[in-house]
Amino acid sequence: MSSDTSSEAQQKLIDLAAEFYDQMDSGEIPEMSIPTRTKSNIVFDEDEDVWVYGERESTRSANSIRGARKLLKAIYTIEFLDNQLEEDRSSTLRELYYLSESWDSNEAQFNDQDESNQLIEDLEIVSEVTREDFHMRPEESGATVMGPLRLREQTRRGEREIHCQEDVGEGGYQIPNNPDTIEFLECDADFVLAVETGGMRDRLVENGFDEEHNALVVHLKGQPARATRRLTRRLHDELGLPVTVFTDGDPWSYRIYGSVAYGSIKSAHLSEYLATPEAQFIGVQPEDIVEYDLPTDPLSDSDINALESELEDPRYQTDYWEEQIELQLDIGKKSEQQALASHGLDFVTETYLPERLSDMGVL
Amino acid sequence: MSSDTSSEAQQKLIDLAAEFYDQMDSGEIPEMSIPTRTKSNIVFDEDEDVWVYGERESTRSANSIRGARKLLKAIYTIEFLDNQLEEDRSSTLRELYYLSESWDSNEAQFNDQDESNQLIEDLEIVSEVTREDFHMRPEESGATVMGPLRLREQTRRGEREIHCQEDVGEGGYQIPNNPDTIEFLECDADFVLAVETGGMRDRLVENGFDEEHNALVVHLKGQPARATRRLTRRLHDELGLPVTVFTDGDPWSYRIYGSVAYGSIKSAHLSEYLATPEAQFIGVQPEDIVEYDLPTDPLSDSDINALESELEDPRYQTDYWEEQIELQLDIGKKSEQQALASHGLDFVTETYLPERLSDMGVL
Repeated sequence: MSSDTSSEAQQKLIDLAAEFYDQMDSGEIPEMSIPTRTKSNIVFDEDEDVWVYGERESTRSANSIRGARKLLKAIYTIEFLDNQLEEDRSSTLRELYYLSESWDSNEAQFNDQDESNQLIEDLEIVSEVTREDFHMRPEESGATVMGPLRLREQTRRGEREIHCQEDVGEGGYQIPNNPDTIEFLECDADFVLAVETGGMRDRLVENGFDEEHNALVVHLKGQPARATRRLTRRLHDELGLPVTVFTDGDPWSYRIYGSVAYGSIKSAHLSEYLATPEAQFIGVQPEDIVEYDLPTDPLSDSDINALESELEDPRYQTDYWEEQIELQLDIGKKSEQQALASHGLDFVTETYLPERLSDMGVL
Repeated sequence: MSSDTSSEAQQKLIDLAAEFYDQMDSGEIPEMSIPTRTKSNIVFDEDEDVWVYGERESTRSANSIRGARKLLKAIYTIEFLDNQLEEDRSSTLRELYYLSESWDSNEAQFNDQDESNQLIEDLEIVSEVTREDFHMRPEESGATVMGPLRLREQTRRGEREIHCQEDVGEGGYQIPNNPDTIEFLECDADFVLAVETGGMRDRLVENGFDEEHNALVVHLKGQPARATRRLTRRLHDELGLPVTVFTDGDPWSYRIYGSVAYGSIKSAHLSEYLATPEAQFIGVQPEDIVEYDLPTDPLSDSDINALESELEDPRYQTDYWEEQIELQLDIGKKSEQQALASHGLDFVTETYLPERLSDMGVL
């Protein structure tokens, strides 16, 4: 699988090393500029509806021992990544950190994992290659998919063709760490339904919601992994599927929706790759808590603070979110997805979701 | 799938209800006795090497309003479970809690989820039917399997035959909530390797360890779910596979090994069903930290306390564990699985695991 993406990623890494070489060759002190990755240098791009970095940059320069050491570590890491791509291997961020202990220069060893994680982020930004294309794997993999989709996954043991209903058990298809190894072959789905909790995902599968409504049920497993967000984006872009997000009705779950739709501050350089700004929120909406008379818990102080900070967040400054969040602060209550079971186990699939999806113009 | 197990579970539930009926019919106040589920009533069964309940019992009797309400809730829950089995449905513990809001008696509604969880545990113990056989699903599903095993999963959409190397992507086969729906068809594996972290699981799969050594790589995902422990037990019992457990080298990870091998206090009534007392610990052993000169972190105070409490735990009162734990307290250090990468990405599969497995008599 020494694919085009691999060679391109390798080339960009080598270009970066060549730049240091040229700087030294012409008598300059080598340096590398990257956008400052602090909260104050993240701006919401209103046109694209995603988070991006602002214009402030910081420079890693070899004009101090500290800076020189950072560049040395970058160069060792570039060499490691170049070899990794050459040999079609991959590794985790944690392995990179430990592996640096085997490097021949003690000065190039990482002091802690934050340092190696940050360097990989630097290299992602400067080279415009994603971590996945460096073949750096996350610690935890993505979640699962169930629905009418046939795909081909390029594994290191060869290609696998898998239909995400017919060829999988009840657990569904496990999304690989790098979903760009997947090619979509055939899709009978009409939309993506991304679901926060395992209990609700299992309910939808048991009730055959994916079959009855041609839905691709993607389990988010709480705050979704990069692999899950990337796959969701690709399902939207390449198959033209509307993406809907179904979570608990509390401020933390609205952030889960936000990370699917708008990206996160931590990965603002990847918003274009990971975020799906067209994703729509199904619920549980504060309005649903009232309308369907759902069992609730009172908002805690930290819930209230989180809701208030969402009101100040440009991502949630729409009429829709302001209305919902203010309603929630007003009623002082939150509900879980599974609270819909108070109207029976089939209420969510026979009544709630069809009504919401039809209101949203998806069904 | 109204299988024999379902009818048996239904019968046991009905027997329980019939007992209440008979008590009332003969003029007795209905009651139900169950083992006290406190730490002081858990004993380690030295013969079976697992935790079991002691002889202390407590009685739920209708001779108080509180007790009568508990029995009322039990009866409503029995009716719900009986219907659920009759219709071949399933539900989560959380759904049961919310669903009680729809019951016609307000007195039968659960006050919080602890109450409904506990009642299901009571019913498991009294009826000797597992939660899985009541078709109660956990919130989170089991982990994944990769290796030379062909199985048949009975899903509600029909049977699925899956080979856990040839028919799955790099993510592996997702263990369903109830692994007793799986039938083992053909197995070329020589042993089970249960792995704590996702990063290490991915390393083993990337390096083809399952292919080269005929290993079934089961991802534990930290503290393993019931489904994962049940599957591991079945792989041992039905296929005669040795089970080995590979975790980080710290007291919390030794507890992960303990829960695979000996069961947990919380599910002591299920040890026979979930625990695999013959499971062997591979490492990372404190001895390995020294021998392989692994990168370490210092033990924190809570690590030290946890190690000391393990020394008092009958499960770890063997020469092996006492030696290892005392060595660890002595060196004051811990290491992660992935620290083995300090000797290169292939060290774990080419050197460490083969050496350990051969020492243990597995390879």
